Amino acid sequence: LVVVFGTAVAFAPAPRITWAHKEVGLVHFHEPGIFNYSTFLLSEHEDTLYVGAREAVFALNALYIAEKQHEVYWKVSEDKKAKCVEKGKSKQTECLNYIRVLQPLDANTLYVCGTNAFQPICDYLLKDSPAIASYHLTCALQFLLKLPNGELYSGTSYNFLGSEPIISRHSSQSPLRTEYAIPWLNEPSFVFVDVIRRHFSDTEVEDDKVYFFFMEVSVEYEFVFKLMIPRIARVCKGDQGGLRTLQKKWTSFLKARLICSKPDSNLVFNMLQDVFVLRGPWLKEPVFYAVFTPQLNNMGLSAVCAYNLSTVEEVFSRGKYMQSTMVEQSHTKWVRYNGAVPRPRPGACINSEARAANFTSSLNLPDKTLQFVKDHPLMDDSIMPYEGKPLLIKKDVNYTQIVVDRVQALDGTIYDVMFISTDKGALHKAISLENSMHIIEETQLFQDFAPVRALLLSSKKGKKFVYAGSNSGMIQGAVAFCGKHITCVDCVLARDPYCAWSPHVATCVALHQEPIPGRDLIQNMSGDVSACPDRVKESYWQHFFKHGGTAELRCSQKSNLAQVVWKFQNSVLNANNSTKYILVGRDNLLIFNLSKEDSGVYQCLSEETVNNKTVSQLLAKHVLEVKLILHTPAAPTLS
Amino acid sequence: LVVVFGTAVAFAPAPRITWAHKEVGLVHFHEPGIFNYSTFLLSEHEDTLYVGAREAVFALNALYIAEKQHEVYWKVSEDKKAKCVEKGKSKQTECLNYIRVLQPLDANTLYVCGTNAFQPICDYLLKDSPAIASYHLTCALQFLLKLPNGELYSGTSYNFLGSEPIISRHSSQSPLRTEYAIPWLNEPSFVFVDVIRRHFSDTEVEDDKVYFFFMEVSVEYEFVFKLMIPRIARVCKGDQGGLRTLQKKWTSFLKARLICSKPDSNLVFNMLQDVFVLRGPWLKEPVFYAVFTPQLNNMGLSAVCAYNLSTVEEVFSRGKYMQSTMVEQSHTKWVRYNGAVPRPRPGACINSEARAANFTSSLNLPDKTLQFVKDHPLMDDSIMPYEGKPLLIKKDVNYTQIVVDRVQALDGTIYDVMFISTDKGALHKAISLENSMHIIEETQLFQDFAPVRALLLSSKKGKKFVYAGSNSGMIQGAVAFCGKHITCVDCVLARDPYCAWSPHVATCVALHQEPIPGRDLIQNMSGDVSACPDRVKESYWQHFFKHGGTAELRCSQKSNLAQVVWKFQNSVLNANNSTKYILVGRDNLLIFNLSKEDSGVYQCLSEETVNNKTVSQLLAKHVLEVKLILHTPAAPTLS
Repeated sequence: LVVVFGTAVAFAPAPRITWAHKEVGLVHFHEPGIFNYSTFLLSEHEDTLYVGAREAVFALNALYIAEKQHEVYWKVSEDKKAKCVEKGKSKQTECLNYIRVLQPLDANTLYVCGTNAFQPICDYLLKDSPAIASYHLTCALQFLLKLPNGELYSGTSYNFLGSEPIISRHSSQSPLRTEYAIPWLNEPSFVFVDVIRRHFSDTEVEDDKVYFFFMEVSVEYEFVFKLMIPRIARVCKGDQGGLRTLQKKWTSFLKARLICSKPDSNLVFNMLQDVFVLRGPWLKEPVFYAVFTPQLNNMGLSAVCAYNLSTVEEVFSRGKYMQSTMVEQSHTKWVRYNGAVPRPRPGACINSEARAANFTSSLNLPDKTLQFVKDHPLMDDSIMPYEGKPLLIKKDVNYTQIVVDRVQALDGTIYDVMFISTDKGALHKAISLENSMHIIEETQLFQDFAPVRALLLSSKKGKKFVYAGSNSGMIQGAVAFCGKHITCVDCVLARDPYCAWSPHVATCVALHQEPIPGRDLIQNMSGDVSACPDRVKESYWQHFFKHGGTAELRCSQKSNLAQVVWKFQNSVLNANNSTKYILVGRDNLLIFNLSKEDSGVYQCLSEETVNNKTVSQLLAKHVLEVKLILHTPAAPTLS
Repeated sequence: LVVVFGTAVAFAPAPRITWAHKEVGLVHFHEPGIFNYSTFLLSEHEDTLYVGAREAVFALNALYIAEKQHEVYWKVSEDKKAKCVEKGKSKQTECLNYIRVLQPLDANTLYVCGTNAFQPICDYLLKDSPAIASYHLTCALQFLLKLPNGELYSGTSYNFLGSEPIISRHSSQSPLRTEYAIPWLNEPSFVFVDVIRRHFSDTEVEDDKVYFFFMEVSVEYEFVFKLMIPRIARVCKGDQGGLRTLQKKWTSFLKARLICSKPDSNLVFNMLQDVFVLRGPWLKEPVFYAVFTPQLNNMGLSAVCAYNLSTVEEVFSRGKYMQSTMVEQSHTKWVRYNGAVPRPRPGACINSEARAANFTSSLNLPDKTLQFVKDHPLMDDSIMPYEGKPLLIKKDVNYTQIVVDRVQALDGTIYDVMFISTDKGALHKAISLENSMHIIEETQLFQDFAPVRALLLSSKKGKKFVYAGSNSGMIQGAVAFCGKHITCVDCVLARDPYCAWSPHVATCVALHQEPIPGRDLIQNMSGDVSACPDRVKESYWQHFFKHGGTAELRCSQKSNLAQVVWKFQNSVLNANNSTKYILVGRDNLLIFNLSKEDSGVYQCLSEETVNNKTVSQLLAKHVLEVKLILHTPAAPTLS
């Protein structure tokens, strides 16, 4: 038996630069005694960031979050808290009101929901003053989406009151919900919900669709123990439920599994952590970016997969269904359904074809179609990621959240910049370069290394920020730290589409901030530094040391992808296994037992290889002079 | 959604001591031009180790393997090699004869089989001279067991000749084999085969049983892609096949899955690497030790699980069977069979109950029983490991092979010492201590870090050795390196059941080697060093240094579980972020810019915590004297 270990997997490289918490300018917000800053709502026209925390909602200046504009506290009533504690829940952590939903309603009103000690509650919050609680939900709310027409879409899972998991629409005209049945929802955890508007450009007048991203216990897969499976479910906004079958239930509820795996390396990412929808006028169709970790044998592994909306829609509109069958009287097995599918297609929105056949509403869909979708809500075809594999696989990290910004580099190339947070309070900024991943930088957002629970991007021109929340506080950071790159070579090697070198002011400038000084900016996303001007000024340090002493020569190198090379009189020094030289503090050189022969020029160079081309940069130059110092005789001492 | 990362898994600790390749005495054997030392046979009464390599068999002195006694070369004939190359296989690696089987036949004859360029061949090898090839197998041989009665049990899998995987018995009286059918064998890889003799102590006269350990593609589990599953299959030695149904096929072939997992940590180990059977007169029943790695998301994780023979037998003799069912005309699903089971029990050996009912041989078993076992060779009940979980889970290592030695400590306690090899040429020696694993030491067996392909233990009293083979050579090592522990405290803290301190000769001695000097040996497996005599002699180094110079004080600490603490005049020195002190080469202390105040006593101590008790040991003592040296005036120099 020959076993091959350690098959080469193309893991993403280390972040090129690691910024310590204090190294970059981050704006902090934290209210003493308030925890769990996990729900964000950005009002771009007001430049206000609304933040939902535990028992509090804050309105902050979005341009400088340390500036609090308003605050509202929303505690659990004493009787509710008592009831919750009676049921065995923790008074300190569970029987509290965690704000989970913040949605704009109109110019003056926010819609706010909280967990309220397992009795979720929603409220209209008039900006500047809180209104009275006005809306009660009876389940453990996990996710909610409110549309401008007043419809409320929510995903809720089990709670101790014994209610079942449901995906529902709260609406005065047409409230709808899922069936209480394992094939519909099997112990789900909701991750994300969003509405995708119809395409007006199409000849077909399509319905708006609401997409739910969640994990649930798999019915189609089995291993030594319970397997979780990530899913997308979608419902049509125009759904009115059935007339007899599926009365007040979704007639358009379909779900499919999301695949994020690399079979040739035996990697399976089936724990969905977060989803971000990238959309904009420049995009043909929305793209779902999703962050995953593995359920099995996870020693710190994360992946990002991207899914095109059309891939998702293709599965729902043309894919095969799954069918459950009872085997040997007691086992339910799910397999591909190969039989005839009724018309109109079960689970489809009412489209022109249906209307042409006189089915103008879900209420008059034939019973056969409704019964079929009731029994077959699960698709057999899987939703495959863009290019069939993860965009990025990273070792030794657990990713928690993702936001994506679409940026145009100087040469016109478009980059989707991913900001991905970790469970250790850090943020990775990554782009795809020539089919390989480049993690531009890693920023330690939270000094206490707390997991990042929420991430938001403000991508307004000239006001681009990343907001992040953890249990202990929140921060606001720039999308790029261009100014930290002090040379042209540094600025170009960063391969950061936000940054370019301005020879005019000899500074690495942020392209998204106006005004950009001068023209002839230098940026090269493949890391070619040939356009950089030759460095004119070369400074050095002069040192004088005593014979027999020890010298420490300093050098600082930020790039994790570069190597430091020390040269003495233009020859490379070897500090390995040397009794003369030691590298300390990563890059500094210690020279022992100084003698006259050690006098001369020491240079610290960084060597970084990009696209098989090595760029060498002088980081520090030291001129050393060792002197034989004259001592005056001293009396011997006793010790 | 609150996600909890990094659930605490009790991984095995680091090996306490890491021995570099040159640090311990290892005996090497390597014949120039010969590779793949992968098959061992030890003849204890001759003290000869037979080694099968690629195209060669060697007889080595088992007490000193560097001494070659005989050698036989066995190459593939030119026409066979040409045929093999024609079929697209590699001339340099595949179309050769890899020795896979070495079995003793009688005092003068060995039974040898080789892969022979995909045309497996077996031969009787007369000791001292090779005989002519006499036995041909037609499949890609993987494992083979020859019983003294001449029966030959083999497991073979697919080869390019198109033959099917089979488990067979080659015997003139009663040749038997498995059915060519997925339920019997589904793309198997054989790992191990052994015979377990009947218990004579039992009132029941049981048959001898042959156990096959292998992996195959799972039929009962499914995930995003093909899942492998480890199995034990067993057949009865007395099996004669059926008369009509299962004619010349096994009537006693049953298989079950081997579980090695930790569900609370989502760890599943389903890649079986090696099996060792621990047995002996002192054992109530044989124990199977098995080494596993995960198939999914494996970033270097290994586990050892142990299975009692009775647990295995219980599943085969009383467990439920699995049943395959066709679902929706095209999907085969396997579920627990809950129907009636015919008598005699399908797959059981002919036992007293069967004999009492007049079934004296498998040839007269009823058709119902035979048809049932033909359709239901797979058990539904799983074989669970001892204590329901892995004995050991280790991060950052891929284990390849295992052997186990049963050792009695001085206090009479029995320890099963596991020797587990890695794919990087190392060997771990581990024992279970008070419900936690203790990896006594790690030895770098192969300098080239090549994977260990074969491991053998010679446990003869006074001649205990570990033999290991890799592609490039083989080594012989001691089971313990007691003499390397130079103090009583070191010897006790090793917690190695092979070693004890002899105050008589002031040496850490090996208990398995005669004669043991003196009585009153000191060993304490819980690491209590209180019985160790106070160290009498305390040596120290005296140093004189110049004012302004740098001192390097040496200290060496072998235990990876200990910390080094430096003291100056009995106060602890802090070398972190200090410009005065730096630790180099792990434990050595550098002192910069020496002045008179630095004169005094420096002590290097190791602190090791065992069972919540910290043992402190003085490793080195340095007495430093800094002198102001009188210089004579020197002329200034120009540089």
